[in-house]
Amino acid sequence: MKLTVVLPVITDAFTEEVRREVGAWVSPGTEVEVRRIARGTASIESEYDEALAGPGILDAVGEAAADGADAVFVSCFGDPGVQAAREIVDIPVVGGFEPAVLTSLALGERTGVITVLPNVLPMLHGLVRRYALTGRVGPIRVVDIPVLDLDAGDRLVDALAEQARAAVAAREADVIVLGCTGMLGVAAALQERLAAEGPFVPVVDPTGAAIMWLESQVRLGVRPSRTTYLPPRPKDRIA
Amino acid sequence: MKLTVVLPVITDAFTEEVRREVGAWVSPGTEVEVRRIARGTASIESEYDEALAGPGILDAVGEAAADGADAVFVSCFGDPGVQAAREIVDIPVVGGFEPAVLTSLALGERTGVITVLPNVLPMLHGLVRRYALTGRVGPIRVVDIPVLDLDAGDRLVDALAEQARAAVAAREADVIVLGCTGMLGVAAALQERLAAEGPFVPVVDPTGAAIMWLESQVRLGVRPSRTTYLPPRPKDRIA
Amino acid sequence: MKLTVVLPVITDAFTEEVRREVGAWVSPGTEVEVRRIARGTASIESEYDEALAGPGILDAVGEAAADGADAVFVSCFGDPGVQAAREIVDIPVVGGFEPAVLTSLALGERTGVITVLPNVLPMLHGLVRRYALTGRVGPIRVVDIPVLDLDAGDRLVDALAEQARAAVAAREADVIVLGCTGMLGVAAALQERLAAEGPFVPVVDPTGAAIMWLESQVRLGVRPSRTTYLPPRPKDRIA
Amino acid sequence: MKLTVVLPVITDAFTEEVRREVGAWVSPGTEVEVRRIARGTASIESEYDEALAGPGILDAVGEAAADGADAVFVSCFGDPGVQAAREIVDIPVVGGFEPAVLTSLALGERTGVITVLPNVLPMLHGLVRRYALTGRVGPIRVVDIPVLDLDAGDRLVDALAEQARAAVAAREADVIVLGCTGMLGVAAALQERLAAEGPFVPVVDPTGAAIMWLESQVRLGVRPSRTTYLPPRPKDRIA
Amino acid sequence: MKLTVVLPVITDAFTEEVRREVGAWVSPGTEVEVRRIARGTASIESEYDEALAGPGILDAVGEAAADGADAVFVSCFGDPGVQAAREIVDIPVVGGFEPAVLTSLALGERTGVITVLPNVLPMLHGLVRRYALTGRVGPIRVVDIPVLDLDAGDRLVDALAEQARAAVAAREADVIVLGCTGMLGVAAALQERLAAEGPFVPVVDPTGAAIMWLESQVRLGVRPSRTTYLPPRPKDRIA
Amino acid sequence: MKLTVVLPVITDAFTEEVRREVGAWVSPGTEVEVRRIARGTASIESEYDEALAGPGILDAVGEAAADGADAVFVSCFGDPGVQAAREIVDIPVVGGFEPAVLTSLALGERTGVITVLPNVLPMLHGLVRRYALTGRVGPIRVVDIPVLDLDAGDRLVDALAEQARAAVAAREADVIVLGCTGMLGVAAALQERLAAEGPFVPVVDPTGAAIMWLESQVRLGVRPSRTTYLPPRPKDRIA
Repeated sequence: MKLTVVLPVITDAFTEEVRREVGAWVSPGTEVEVRRIARGTASIESEYDEALAGPGILDAVGEAAADGADAVFVSCFGDPGVQAAREIVDIPVVGGFEPAVLTSLALGERTGVITVLPNVLPMLHGLVRRYALTGRVGPIRVVDIPVLDLDAGDRLVDALAEQARAAVAAREADVIVLGCTGMLGVAAALQERLAAEGPFVPVVDPTGAAIMWLESQVRLGVRPSRTTYLPPRPKDRIA
Repeated sequence: MKLTVVLPVITDAFTEEVRREVGAWVSPGTEVEVRRIARGTASIESEYDEALAGPGILDAVGEAAADGADAVFVSCFGDPGVQAAREIVDIPVVGGFEPAVLTSLALGERTGVITVLPNVLPMLHGLVRRYALTGRVGPIRVVDIPVLDLDAGDRLVDALAEQARAAVAAREADVIVLGCTGMLGVAAALQERLAAEGPFVPVVDPTGAAIMWLESQVRLGVRPSRTTYLPPRPKDRIA
Repeated sequence: MKLTVVLPVITDAFTEEVRREVGAWVSPGTEVEVRRIARGTASIESEYDEALAGPGILDAVGEAAADGADAVFVSCFGDPGVQAAREIVDIPVVGGFEPAVLTSLALGERTGVITVLPNVLPMLHGLVRRYALTGRVGPIRVVDIPVLDLDAGDRLVDALAEQARAAVAAREADVIVLGCTGMLGVAAALQERLAAEGPFVPVVDPTGAAIMWLESQVRLGVRPSRTTYLPPRPKDRIA
Repeated sequence: MKLTVVLPVITDAFTEEVRREVGAWVSPGTEVEVRRIARGTASIESEYDEALAGPGILDAVGEAAADGADAVFVSCFGDPGVQAAREIVDIPVVGGFEPAVLTSLALGERTGVITVLPNVLPMLHGLVRRYALTGRVGPIRVVDIPVLDLDAGDRLVDALAEQARAAVAAREADVIVLGCTGMLGVAAALQERLAAEGPFVPVVDPTGAAIMWLESQVRLGVRPSRTTYLPPRPKDRIA
Repeated sequence: MKLTVVLPVITDAFTEEVRREVGAWVSPGTEVEVRRIARGTASIESEYDEALAGPGILDAVGEAAADGADAVFVSCFGDPGVQAAREIVDIPVVGGFEPAVLTSLALGERTGVITVLPNVLPMLHGLVRRYALTGRVGPIRVVDIPVLDLDAGDRLVDALAEQARAAVAAREADVIVLGCTGMLGVAAALQERLAAEGPFVPVVDPTGAAIMWLESQVRLGVRPSRTTYLPPRPKDRIA
Repeated sequence: MKLTVVLPVITDAFTEEVRREVGAWVSPGTEVEVRRIARGTASIESEYDEALAGPGILDAVGEAAADGADAVFVSCFGDPGVQAAREIVDIPVVGGFEPAVLTSLALGERTGVITVLPNVLPMLHGLVRRYALTGRVGPIRVVDIPVLDLDAGDRLVDALAEQARAAVAAREADVIVLGCTGMLGVAAALQERLAAEGPFVPVVDPTGAAIMWLESQVRLGVRPSRTTYLPPRPKDRIA
């Protein structure tokens, strides 16, 4: 199968790293393509950034489908453009939130998300409510590191571990979900760190979860429902 | 005060009618300005249309604030771009959903929204959940008339009355909210029609409700919270 | 329009202050009348006080409507007698809770109410549940000052600021609602105080919000639904 | 123990029947006293009636406690004055709703309440929400018979059976709660009637449930919490 | 009436104490029988223990009914086997959770459960959600004492009082429910201890509550609904 | 990886078919083992059957882990023994409900489950509440065919299609989940049938979903949290 990753940012700063990371998660038979968007922002850290990225994401998803993609991962934890994209293509599309959080629900009683900045908390809490998952997902925490500084190595793992420990201690979380798809390659290290200090607490990487999710949907032969995602009616549009 | 209406469509088909309608709702001292957007779609009837209109709406809201607007009404029931707009300006901004539905909650036990097409139902149900109002807002109904055909006069009132009667009979609704800001000038006629046939059921016009809401916010001296709507961080953006 | 304020207390201690305060909120064309009740208590700070005030409130609302009022504000945050009053008159009636809390919902993600005494917490939490708003309204806080001591000037603002800061810091609140209609004339000062110390957090005055709400309902041409508020059947009554 | 029934109506039309009925439910050692109220209405079928009855109910409960009652049953399904009464006396007090509905929750998955008139539906649905039981209690149904006509014998059982059958068939109910304390002496007949026609569906009589509840509370040595029901502060009151 | 207590453990360590305790709670006319199970575990402190005890509990309940029991109390707070038991017998069956927690709901706004070990928290939180009582039951607390060490006398009351005080102070609880049926004979002491230090907070003993509940169900003439608890279909079974 | 399927029934009637079906779903590198249980029932169609199967399921899961399984699928839609099993082994364990329903949540707004018999409805509705998914999962429907008659070929697809169509028409469902792991090999046919008659509605097979889920968990390097699933304490147990 052919899996397209839509990077909803206007620079190539993450392209290679994402390609490598996704390449490491996919099954042998899966071909990976990474597309960044032409219009939008350098990173998504607000409702404003997300709205600006919308048309570019939809362009990229539409082109990916036209080019034969079997599934699309919009690589951002806020699921930007994902509902809209499902209206216009006939293949599975997910962002970072749904696969990671739904995966976490079968791993423990309460899910604790740790994201980048306070700016995105209302957006993410809004997703929790929109997806009707308030009964299982606790208050969301932040490491207070901007997306463009996430290549912080140990400092990021330290900050995540501090928040994860606090969430577990406060009984807010039994499972940790990394709340930004830019937190690449740290889930295993964080999981190990936590297990070294206390009971085992699984850590879900949103990129890995999204890849598993899309491969699973393709293998199961399912794609989004057309009674939820109706095709947009023809009309004048200026993009 | 100066109130700007952002019409999130790319044509001037509605501009004059909206200006007239809004002009009829405002208080004596309120000056009205109507701006349509430069990029987007001819009408908003899907998540896709809404996403395409996002950057244009934010441009228009930002310009309105720069031009001295005291409050902005994004004239679409799906509240497109409203959360993002609150991040970038220091004045009240509302769409059609919040003022109309919140107003309805003090008028009866259950609110019944009637909108245009099935395409927007998941988007509107998503707003009900996002705003955590599922305990009071019933299933949303449609007249199955596209936005661009809403100048249907009696046919529209007939279709609305049929759905409103059904919703009341099924105990889904005690108050009716018109679920599209394009349903201009029919709320009073519908309310009268329903009252002629049975017990009084109030009908809330989303344009009227939004105008009252914004004038009220300005008079109360309040505007959106900066702990929910943090200003976007500076970064590269291509719109 | 003619707006009647029903003061649900048996003394005239608040009458002049309320008349002045409401007079400052209304639109130019609105005539204000203040009526206190004949039977009830000196202040409402318990379910017991609220129940004792019930018949007096209903008398006053009925008389106001008979005397040509266009809308009635029952000036108490617990909304005493409000549902019952809607059954017996054909004009908009609100208390303090509904307009203030519903207004707050469009200003931020979470609403924090600050009221007078712990005695009224179960009553107010009961309203939050009755109105199905638990998803947006946090735990309610108190300043621990009785209603009759609220003319405390700076001490009241100090106590409110302390609770508001704590609620914001604990991420319980993005918007503050003053939870007693006796907290007159302090909303603006509190909002300013908070803004001087941190991000802007709106403060909603329940009296101001109620006035806006009633004027809006009259201008929108709506009043409570007769499928929720059915007229009481004729029968023997001894008041 | 001494159990006082407060009949929240101003006539003696029900007094003897209630005394007989309650007498049949109590344990050997329980002494029953029935008090009607001096101020209020002939029956409670609206929020208005309930508010008018409030002071009279509180007078009666206070007097009962002063006269040595060990527990008080306010014989009305809407629980009028019950929360307020718990603030002023140190003994268990219940109305009709809480004991019957809570009892029903251990008898089946969903509870179906059948009450008298549509007028009381918003009040009862309001209680379901106030007590946070919406997840288990279905839509409430009516027989459309006023309280004062409930001595309808077979006609009442017929009407109840019709609504109960419909509720069960629609999967709204697995347990039936009679939603008016004036529906005396029909629960067993209704339960038998339903069992003769289909699977066994329990029918909970609110008077019987309240008596069991109060005797149980006394035997368990518990009474309402003083952190929920704080004693009203001293102040001027005119009743 | 004849009331059977099923002790879901494989030793007789508790039999005499439970017989004495239950004997002290029942009405004069009630005959008590205590049966322990033949297969299972020495105490129930995990989902694993609960699952192992299932067949033994069902054997015991079935035998009790065959021997003429009028009601059965499965003496464990996790309600193990209770739903299944209702499918196979025609008499009331309860565990410890339902009667105690439902009783508590009419005593105060929020219920605080205090149980033995963290191991059972997810199971008990799962019951709160399964019974749809999340709106009233706070976070559950533990004394961190295993069931087999509960005969700790003062140490148990000390530990319970510490947790109860903390729950009340944090506004998590207005009523305390002892969350293990092995906490025998301490409810009254705990209630007294709390009342000596602050406002009255009722403490509900699950054994006492269950006995009252079952006697009440028998006197009310009700038993579990056959539309919720359908009789298992005949088939091969190896126990 | 080695994946063990625990068939929670006491006959080999399904063993070969399940082995074949699971074999068709797994990835090339996955080795499949099917174990049936020694004690339990011929099929699971009630809480009673589920409870009887508990110890046998736990035996089988424990043995599978001891024999080197990397993940276990308890092949029953009611998730019997799954929570308990997670307490005793250090590998991923799922039943049929969690993977299928969680998968469905990213495919459409509302999930409609169709199961075998009315007997299991309270158990499945109980799971929906326990997992806190009531906001997305509609009322569950039945085909009214016992598990042992599910090899009905076309008759089963006909019955499923009838219920699926009704659920979609009533706006209860946008995605269909087959609510019994014995409904083998019909998901694709049902999905095709529905798509031939109306808009595309995905159909999720619980066996397929479970296999994808377990392979994904293993590849992600996660397993159940030890703060939710604590290891049972040592004690006497008689199985």
